[in-house]
Amino acid sequence: MVPVRTPGTLYLLPAPLHPEADSQSMPAMLAPLALRLKHWVVESERSARRFLRILNPGCPIDTLHFSLLNEHTRAEEVSAMLCPARSGEHIGLLSDAGCPAIADPGAWLVAEAHKHGVPVHPVAGPSSILLTLMGSGMDGQKFSMHGYLPVEALARARALKAVEDESRRRAGATQLFIETPYRNRQLMAAMEANLRGSTRLCIGAALGSPKPTLITRSLTEWKGNWPDLHKIPAVFALQAQ
Amino acid sequence: MVPVRTPGTLYLLPAPLHPEADSQSMPAMLAPLALRLKHWVVESERSARRFLRILNPGCPIDTLHFSLLNEHTRAEEVSAMLCPARSGEHIGLLSDAGCPAIADPGAWLVAEAHKHGVPVHPVAGPSSILLTLMGSGMDGQKFSMHGYLPVEALARARALKAVEDESRRRAGATQLFIETPYRNRQLMAAMEANLRGSTRLCIGAALGSPKPTLITRSLTEWKGNWPDLHKIPAVFALQAQ
Repeated sequence: MVPVRTPGTLYLLPAPLHPEADSQSMPAMLAPLALRLKHWVVESERSARRFLRILNPGCPIDTLHFSLLNEHTRAEEVSAMLCPARSGEHIGLLSDAGCPAIADPGAWLVAEAHKHGVPVHPVAGPSSILLTLMGSGMDGQKFSMHGYLPVEALARARALKAVEDESRRRAGATQLFIETPYRNRQLMAAMEANLRGSTRLCIGAALGSPKPTLITRSLTEWKGNWPDLHKIPAVFALQAQ
Repeated sequence: MVPVRTPGTLYLLPAPLHPEADSQSMPAMLAPLALRLKHWVVESERSARRFLRILNPGCPIDTLHFSLLNEHTRAEEVSAMLCPARSGEHIGLLSDAGCPAIADPGAWLVAEAHKHGVPVHPVAGPSSILLTLMGSGMDGQKFSMHGYLPVEALARARALKAVEDESRRRAGATQLFIETPYRNRQLMAAMEANLRGSTRLCIGAALGSPKPTLITRSLTEWKGNWPDLHKIPAVFALQAQ
């Protein structure tokens, strides 16, 4: 008879939001936990190596097993990534930045873990979405995250108005969205053109870097005073008045 | 001429999710930052004192200034809590558990800070909402948090169905909600009675405690197998299939 093995745990580990961030913004238990894991599912191997070197410059990275889970991964590859856990080994899941499974493909692996009875243990850490919500001063009990809005101008204008309407309909519920950093300028121009002057907008940009921006103003106040966010990671939170 | 003073910063500091949680789940920079603050806005003084004693058992708590910001605070009292920042002193904002301004009245103070040009600096830490979302395996890019659902049976049933409909309409977007811990049993009974068997539900309970629950199953699988969550803090995440 084959003995039934206790499965390993899938640990969801936060990564720094910015290459210059040090380990001080991370939970103290992260390094001892991460440095004992042999099996990793990561968004990119380069970021994973940098992460491990920040935790311990002498980490024997070449002895570790890395599987890639990102937008190029096919759904049918994901299940096999849990094999180490099924034979009793723990696995670390790591994003390029921030919390895995929040706005990245890591959620597929977590869903598989639940299907196969692999315990899931998320470790809290920096998330630019949560930091923007906390720091916005907007409703932190009723909020929606929309991910990326459409890129095409007319569709984007329509989406921005729909998001503003949703906030108004839900008594000022906070509406969050993100954009690819090199399109932030177009998004800001579209907000200026399509949102009401009284709507409040919080910009959380370069969070976790030495020079973060976290400011809430009305659209009227932002008009003509937009920060330069070209190629800078940013989260936007909006609240209709 | 009165010199223009640089305002102090409003720091949003995370508190442990559970009384038994130690400081290891908190960012390493939290203690040195928190222990240098003299002015505090807190949800309850008892939790704030416990928090500071965890960071440093010898903390001279009696020399600190605490203002209370909770559901009993009147809106017109909030602005005065920023006075120390206007005269150049930093302020710490603290919830009873988790991240301030997420599902607690702290957001009022943050909104005031933005109005008066007081810089806002959120520090990442454990949030039961974010941990449940990460660990659910559900959509981490499109999600909505609804806060508390109605208590009255018919209104609750209607709200649950509306939340399930919203997930279906938005291609499986994750829907999160919470309940007062002593009403978790009624909420689970209502979910069993009103949600479709194929809908997936994640329960994140007692997160941050030594015995957390974080499990995603279909309603059909939960039926008759609910955990005992009486008086246990829990977050619920739902995804229609």
